[in-house]
Amino acid sequence: MAKKASLKAALLIIGNEILSGRTQDKNIQHIAAKLGEKGISLAEIRVVPDVEAKIIKAVNELRKEADYLFTTGGIGPTHDDITADSIAKALGVKNVLNAEARRILSENYGEENLNEARLKMAHVPEGAELIRNPVSSAPGFSIGNVYVMAGVPKIMQGMLDNVLPNLREGAKVYSNTVQCELPESIVANDLTQLQKKFPDVDMGSYPHFKMGASSLALVLRSSDVEALKEATRELILIVTKLGSDHQTDLQVPL
Amino acid sequence: MAKKASLKAALLIIGNEILSGRTQDKNIQHIAAKLGEKGISLAEIRVVPDVEAKIIKAVNELRKEADYLFTTGGIGPTHDDITADSIAKALGVKNVLNAEARRILSENYGEENLNEARLKMAHVPEGAELIRNPVSSAPGFSIGNVYVMAGVPKIMQGMLDNVLPNLREGAKVYSNTVQCELPESIVANDLTQLQKKFPDVDMGSYPHFKMGASSLALVLRSSDVEALKEATRELILIVTKLGSDHQTDLQVPL
Repeated sequence: MAKKASLKAALLIIGNEILSGRTQDKNIQHIAAKLGEKGISLAEIRVVPDVEAKIIKAVNELRKEADYLFTTGGIGPTHDDITADSIAKALGVKNVLNAEARRILSENYGEENLNEARLKMAHVPEGAELIRNPVSSAPGFSIGNVYVMAGVPKIMQGMLDNVLPNLREGAKVYSNTVQCELPESIVANDLTQLQKKFPDVDMGSYPHFKMGASSLALVLRSSDVEALKEATRELILIVTKLGSDHQTDLQVPL
Repeated sequence: MAKKASLKAALLIIGNEILSGRTQDKNIQHIAAKLGEKGISLAEIRVVPDVEAKIIKAVNELRKEADYLFTTGGIGPTHDDITADSIAKALGVKNVLNAEARRILSENYGEENLNEARLKMAHVPEGAELIRNPVSSAPGFSIGNVYVMAGVPKIMQGMLDNVLPNLREGAKVYSNTVQCELPESIVANDLTQLQKKFPDVDMGSYPHFKMGASSLALVLRSSDVEALKEATRELILIVTKLGSDHQTDLQVPL
């Protein structure tokens, strides 16, 4: 069996509501998890305001760096929804009325209710394919490796479910966590050595502080199952040697 | 009284834990709110992994675009904590042992316990000033317009509190929200006209879907208090004309 390639995605969150602090992001974790199931890793995230030049610059940088670029936000009917237009400009194509999108909106709202604002939601960059919206009908779209979704979590989730079957499958990354009570700086040296021994296992160290006590999550991530197992075993030996109990949360059992 | 300038900040979140979906971000909203109180708006956010070239590129782009750049994450004692070193490289200075940081760590851990990992946390870019850490002693630092903080929310919050008094004060942006039961596409046309009439008031439209019913938050934001009041009054007239009840959440009462 040919080894699957590692696939990378970027996420561009478009809109002022995360930047202003008004809205707590609820999309990043969901997108990271769903893409992870397909073996696609999130490699960069940007949040930009509803400003055309900012969107164009981010789209053109990210779509070149990543295998896939996903965007959320800015595809509604109001004046601040400038995503479709900005992406068309980024890609050097026209933003045009899409007959199928128009039909979907006509079915949902009634032909007589297709006002200017609703017709705006039927415009997508020329050559784009629609992404169905199971909640409120107005579709997202994909063009090249760019996938454009709504920002409202429930709609975004429905659109992402419709997109996922069309994506290539990458090498799935598995994660094993060893939780202990050691200070980071006591584990650091052994962890550095372990990282050198297992270069294909990504090792992270995440301390938590709760009621004066500190605990430490040591997270090993890899698409190489055997290396991940072996590194996890050695990490448990290290933690035990340093005098701590541990708990594990293993996607790949030892 | 001279009119205060608008000040913009960028935020760079460094580390794999948000990208992998392992950790739900808890810092963006807090930072946006605290900066907002000083009249500083968050203009862009990026999340990058623990990869030196990615950090350097983001730091150099964002520190030039914004009045202030804040970073979180990657300043601990382990091998994946490469923020100080990467920022030194981005700024073309050395990452050096800071005598004051060393003294703080020696006081906290005991001189005999200053191992290599802990001494790593005493290294900051040459010329940087320390940001005190009220939780776990290891300091952050600032250099030029770049403010480097921990990623653990409680530590980040303590560091930010220590930074805020040193920042300039910008024109504070106030926010008035009118909540109604209209579909976005019914308000869109009037909202576009209102936006044209009040170019200094930023107008956003945020639909929510709960149990099949949709509600709409119309958010007006401006540092021009009189324009904000007048635009809010007109928006309430529009919503009423279109046949909806409304609720308001006003930072600037009418």
